[in-house]
Amino acid sequence: MTARVKLSDVARHANVSTATVSRVLNGKSVVSEQTRRQVLAALDVLGYARPDSVSARSSGMVGLVVPELSNPIFPMYVQELERHLSTAGWVPLLCTQSPGGVTEDEYVRILTERGVAGIIFVSGLHADLNADPKRYHDLADIPFVTINGPNPAIAAPSFACDDADATNRALEHLVSLGHTRIGLAIGPSRFVPISTKVKTYTTALRRLLPESEPLVAQSLFTIEGGQACAEELLDSGVSAIIATSDLMAIGAIYQVRSRGLRVPEDVSVVGYDGTALTAFTDPPLTTVRQPVARIAQAAVTTLLQSIAGEKSPTSSLLFSPELIVRSSTAPKPQEKE
Amino acid sequence: MTARVKLSDVARHANVSTATVSRVLNGKSVVSEQTRRQVLAALDVLGYARPDSVSARSSGMVGLVVPELSNPIFPMYVQELERHLSTAGWVPLLCTQSPGGVTEDEYVRILTERGVAGIIFVSGLHADLNADPKRYHDLADIPFVTINGPNPAIAAPSFACDDADATNRALEHLVSLGHTRIGLAIGPSRFVPISTKVKTYTTALRRLLPESEPLVAQSLFTIEGGQACAEELLDSGVSAIIATSDLMAIGAIYQVRSRGLRVPEDVSVVGYDGTALTAFTDPPLTTVRQPVARIAQAAVTTLLQSIAGEKSPTSSLLFSPELIVRSSTAPKPQEKE
Repeated sequence: MTARVKLSDVARHANVSTATVSRVLNGKSVVSEQTRRQVLAALDVLGYARPDSVSARSSGMVGLVVPELSNPIFPMYVQELERHLSTAGWVPLLCTQSPGGVTEDEYVRILTERGVAGIIFVSGLHADLNADPKRYHDLADIPFVTINGPNPAIAAPSFACDDADATNRALEHLVSLGHTRIGLAIGPSRFVPISTKVKTYTTALRRLLPESEPLVAQSLFTIEGGQACAEELLDSGVSAIIATSDLMAIGAIYQVRSRGLRVPEDVSVVGYDGTALTAFTDPPLTTVRQPVARIAQAAVTTLLQSIAGEKSPTSSLLFSPELIVRSSTAPKPQEKE
Repeated sequence: MTARVKLSDVARHANVSTATVSRVLNGKSVVSEQTRRQVLAALDVLGYARPDSVSARSSGMVGLVVPELSNPIFPMYVQELERHLSTAGWVPLLCTQSPGGVTEDEYVRILTERGVAGIIFVSGLHADLNADPKRYHDLADIPFVTINGPNPAIAAPSFACDDADATNRALEHLVSLGHTRIGLAIGPSRFVPISTKVKTYTTALRRLLPESEPLVAQSLFTIEGGQACAEELLDSGVSAIIATSDLMAIGAIYQVRSRGLRVPEDVSVVGYDGTALTAFTDPPLTTVRQPVARIAQAAVTTLLQSIAGEKSPTSSLLFSPELIVRSSTAPKPQEKE
């Protein structure tokens, strides 16, 4: 269909090389959105019909499946993924879930029916050890990538915050402050990141504090979940809590205070996710920040390469988080020694 | 196309009345998703092809256009809208924007091409007094509703937090605490809610504090915008600030403190939006909460009625916000009198 197009005319009009025009027209390579739009505009002006492959791409949709938007880490991912997708000329079809609403499987069916070119799963069923990975094998025709909770049973590129690294950083920070009874407040253990964190915590504790027993409390990823975990861990006499979400950390702080104790003077709390408002909580939260921007960019780049027909590695890429030290952690109180 | 279907068979199998089967098949009335699914399952089991109207509805898409997801009020709206849409069997196609990315107009074109049944605009160009409302007239074929920033130039149902009420509540709260120099920290005045808030503030100030001059500072809706506004208002000697977003309020608190002043002892700050984490900021934020759940439910119900072909009123519905008094407001400091 490009036979009738005089590449040199289009190239001159769009102020790009003929090779670039070719790349845009055959739709096989990733070119910058600005360049692509210049070429499309030149096609329009010169009266050439856009080839189907180009038209499809110009309003191509990519499914974004997230578990929910109440935890601010998910809007952060969506915002970054949207930015990278739309800059490249793609439109995200966002599927967010709520109890009793549309399930991930239903969303995938609808996305497939609607002809999305690819799907990005953020903390989806791929990260749930209780879910059957077979559902992803059935997706073989449509390129997809997963974010967080890397699952070796699923043959797709995965991009994740390094959960082991995150746990080690939080634990080492608290040990360096002199804490010896450090509890882990986790979300549901059926999720890959939680499973990794528990293993890492247990192993690192044995190495750093061989006398100390692992103290793990499990609930939901929410503020209320953090409160419940903190209650259990405080009963076990911890002086520090590592939470597996910022919301849980906020709940843990609330629980510490409801016992008449102070954060960080009596009990230190470390969050996880590094969402924006943690800088403004009371106290400002020490937390381990997921490199959302880098993960989102890598996921989008790889997905678009897959859509363009390039083979991509199916290995799991891990991204190092950052420990942000603020005011919810302090040296272990003297009176507890 | 329903002629070949024996309604009585389907009704018996789905355990509903024949009238209900009719309603589902003609797709003209809103029935509960559960009932609809029962009827569809019965059709499948009995070997009837689903009529087109039903198939279209069963994976029907509704466009949700939001300006961004970094301000937590927008994920709140999306989460609630998604919940109501998906419970009714609809899938939201979320369009969120970022600088340099896809514009609202482009999203609308793509949504229309993809055959969405309706669109919900949250704080879209309808709320921007500088934007041409004509773009919405061109949308006449597709049902849509707007949330926040009601614009009489657009003939569609609109659902909004009552901005005048919100401003009055904040102002009356601060006046009751004895404040006499109260500044308003606003986002861009081209937006309908801001325009309403400035008018309300000016009028109410004249009524409540006739000796006091209006003090309005304008910036962005962000934390940094709040800082900039607070700087200007503090220079004018205010003892209280009303912000037009929670993020701005957080920025204002930051700015007050960077001058060595305290919140609320020296300066009171009131937020707006009532997003979840404001209960956990330092100090917990006094704020005016948008009734997000009620607005979202009304918007979805009305949109689905329009999609089903029912005439809906094009008037603007205003929802009263709640003043949540926490710890960022206190009586005017004595030393300033």
